[in-house]
Amino acid sequence: MFSKETYIARRAKLKQTVGSGLLLFLGNEESGMNYADNTYHFRQDSTFLYFFGLPYAGLSAVIDIDQDREIIFGDELTIDSIVWMGTQPTLKEKSERVGVRETRPSNELESYLKNGQQKKQPIHYLPVYRAEHQVKLLAWLGIYPGTEKPSVPFIQGVVNQRNYKSEEEVAEIEKACIVTADMHLAAMRTVRPGIRESEVAAVVGEVAFAKDYQLSFPIIATVNGQTLHNHYHGNMIKEGDMLLLDAGAETEMGYAGDMSSTIPAGSRFTARQKEIYDIAVASHEAAVAALRPGVLFEDIYDLSVGVIMEGLKGLGFVKGDPAEAVKAGAHALFMPCGLGHMMGLDVHDMENLGEVYVGYDGRQKSRQFGRKSLRLGRKLEPGFVLTIEPGIYFIPELIDLWRAERKFAEFINYEKVAAYKDFSGIRNEEDYLITETGARLLGKKIPISTDEVETFRAG
Amino acid sequence: MFSKETYIARRAKLKQTVGSGLLLFLGNEESGMNYADNTYHFRQDSTFLYFFGLPYAGLSAVIDIDQDREIIFGDELTIDSIVWMGTQPTLKEKSERVGVRETRPSNELESYLKNGQQKKQPIHYLPVYRAEHQVKLLAWLGIYPGTEKPSVPFIQGVVNQRNYKSEEEVAEIEKACIVTADMHLAAMRTVRPGIRESEVAAVVGEVAFAKDYQLSFPIIATVNGQTLHNHYHGNMIKEGDMLLLDAGAETEMGYAGDMSSTIPAGSRFTARQKEIYDIAVASHEAAVAALRPGVLFEDIYDLSVGVIMEGLKGLGFVKGDPAEAVKAGAHALFMPCGLGHMMGLDVHDMENLGEVYVGYDGRQKSRQFGRKSLRLGRKLEPGFVLTIEPGIYFIPELIDLWRAERKFAEFINYEKVAAYKDFSGIRNEEDYLITETGARLLGKKIPISTDEVETFRAG
Repeated sequence: MFSKETYIARRAKLKQTVGSGLLLFLGNEESGMNYADNTYHFRQDSTFLYFFGLPYAGLSAVIDIDQDREIIFGDELTIDSIVWMGTQPTLKEKSERVGVRETRPSNELESYLKNGQQKKQPIHYLPVYRAEHQVKLLAWLGIYPGTEKPSVPFIQGVVNQRNYKSEEEVAEIEKACIVTADMHLAAMRTVRPGIRESEVAAVVGEVAFAKDYQLSFPIIATVNGQTLHNHYHGNMIKEGDMLLLDAGAETEMGYAGDMSSTIPAGSRFTARQKEIYDIAVASHEAAVAALRPGVLFEDIYDLSVGVIMEGLKGLGFVKGDPAEAVKAGAHALFMPCGLGHMMGLDVHDMENLGEVYVGYDGRQKSRQFGRKSLRLGRKLEPGFVLTIEPGIYFIPELIDLWRAERKFAEFINYEKVAAYKDFSGIRNEEDYLITETGARLLGKKIPISTDEVETFRAG
Repeated sequence: MFSKETYIARRAKLKQTVGSGLLLFLGNEESGMNYADNTYHFRQDSTFLYFFGLPYAGLSAVIDIDQDREIIFGDELTIDSIVWMGTQPTLKEKSERVGVRETRPSNELESYLKNGQQKKQPIHYLPVYRAEHQVKLLAWLGIYPGTEKPSVPFIQGVVNQRNYKSEEEVAEIEKACIVTADMHLAAMRTVRPGIRESEVAAVVGEVAFAKDYQLSFPIIATVNGQTLHNHYHGNMIKEGDMLLLDAGAETEMGYAGDMSSTIPAGSRFTARQKEIYDIAVASHEAAVAALRPGVLFEDIYDLSVGVIMEGLKGLGFVKGDPAEAVKAGAHALFMPCGLGHMMGLDVHDMENLGEVYVGYDGRQKSRQFGRKSLRLGRKLEPGFVLTIEPGIYFIPELIDLWRAERKFAEFINYEKVAAYKDFSGIRNEEDYLITETGARLLGKKIPISTDEVETFRAG
């Protein structure tokens, strides 16, 4: 964890921003997989980590702005727990490490909140994403599940701090990115015809776990890269396949890395693969070159998908004016997802707080298919950390659907596209920090061009 | 999944046992780690798997005994989901594979249950272990979280089926045990002074994940084996340490393996370690030799801890009559946990349904410290699958506590014991099927005696 001064300063700033009322921070609980005591790896809520730093289950915290109090609610270990779990610092000791001097037993939180309600203090809480938090809000505040009303000032206050990464945060994210790069290099050494996707995924995971890191999200390791959320690992890799790997590490403090690579099963890409792959890399490089403060990220998205449409026009998949095609939304046939997202304590940073606040600064998002999946559209500022991940996908279900509807027939050569329904998909992804003057790659460079990939795999 | 006949027969038997009313099966939902869409690996509820076989999120099922209907409630995929997740069979098709012909949209479940309530049908449900289930029971049946009243006939019906493993289940468990054994062999090849616990844990996990299996529980890989629930992997392994590994694989169908081994950091156990380790193995072998139908497992526990106390008396840790010491509960200083537990679709099988039903056939459990942690005490029957895992632990906190209280001072030589506060702990664990005449090891034998372990590590 960072020094206590970091957490004290973060809380002080938040108090000032929100101004009044009572801020309720719901820490996470252990989560049972198939019974209560067989738990998933514990993950503390990221906002709780940001302001209170403690990675332990069963905690809540209150910042009572009006009374200028900060309290962590939780319970001390019993002797029974110590026998099973070993000696640990007390909650009091843990809390002092993050600059909080007041701790109270969990069962006093309800009355503290009710007392605030009686005094007409606004009780601010964030959007909930775990049912355990719904149950708590019901018990403590009588809020029926599904009727939660998260506090917009609280959300905005948190987002406006977490979006700007401090130097110590960037250093931590960079640690995650270095291990993430090593995960991808391990995959590049492992992929070959005749092994299963799960074998690659296992090698990739091993790199993170050996460091005592976690995965920042479930590994995608698939020969069907066109299926964007594909967590199936049961296929055998065959000569002529490409394996799309999307995987990242999470440091002990909870900071994420997130990279993608597309690896040929054999020693080289096929000619057909190389044609498409080179366009994806050109799109990637154009986006990276455009990163700097003051630029609207949605403009970089347009630039990036424009390069794809230009390239695909050169190969005969696209016709007409590529820029017009992008404006109309025809590019979404090949790239129905976004170009990148904020990254920090969450791999999609603060996704639970609402993309419109995090990625659009309150501005309404597009509803156009494809563009609506762009998680980030706002003007870039120094301190933002984001991913760049353009891709080209041939999704049979989408091709069939659009072709039947003759959708964007003026821009799409469906005959040519239909011949690529077995092509799968390509994505490369890197992580960048926006600096005062441009952008800096986080972690270390891994092979991305066809030459670099083929040379690495030959070596 | 098994053939549809298996699931049809299981449900038919359950209907007959419970007799009347409406049985509600709550399938599990995806679980967000740090935001809703960043999910843990999905794990279906084991009882849902046992009776309905489908490993997908968002399903519920009803067996309406009175009307002789079986219905799976869930939603078909939208075209948006198909684009992101690929083509999948419909819910109707999936349900037919497990012999269920009636499917309905999720939002019809509430009215189906309310209809049953109006007709005074008893609505049976099982104990809940996930907050999402509490939220559902509140929404559908008005049951306030924490006031759930699980159905005892439903629990007993499920336990009385799941406790007896069929041949096809044993074959599946055996697959898990073989991979589990390979995980332990991988650790025995990896452990050495100068690497971190996390590196061993990563290698162990990789064996399971490469097979596209999961972990049946979080890996324990620690030089502090005396801390029973120790998931910390941050220590460097030093010459003279022992690494206690407790880890198991889970097959794609959800069946578990569970083994423990204790591995010296160097090529050999120290003389001090060997003395204690040999006693643990003798205790293990005595327990295994006693396994057969008709024997009370609690008697095997007494036998097993008796061997430990005899052995420790020989080394001067224990004084007086070992059998009397066991009767009094003094052995719990060295083995405060149980000897074994049922294993199947859960590594602690049906722990969420209540150990008193699963492991004690309704008989009251002991409240004595140590013995109360014995999850299994009942008379053994053919078809039971269980673990054998005696251990010897030197737990500094417990030694200090008891010594200060002069607890069992007539049986414990605290001066000698206190000199072992740095010893850590030893456990070996194997999985057995109770047969008509005795017991059969599941999976394959791995090194357990000091000779076997040292020979394997030398080779």
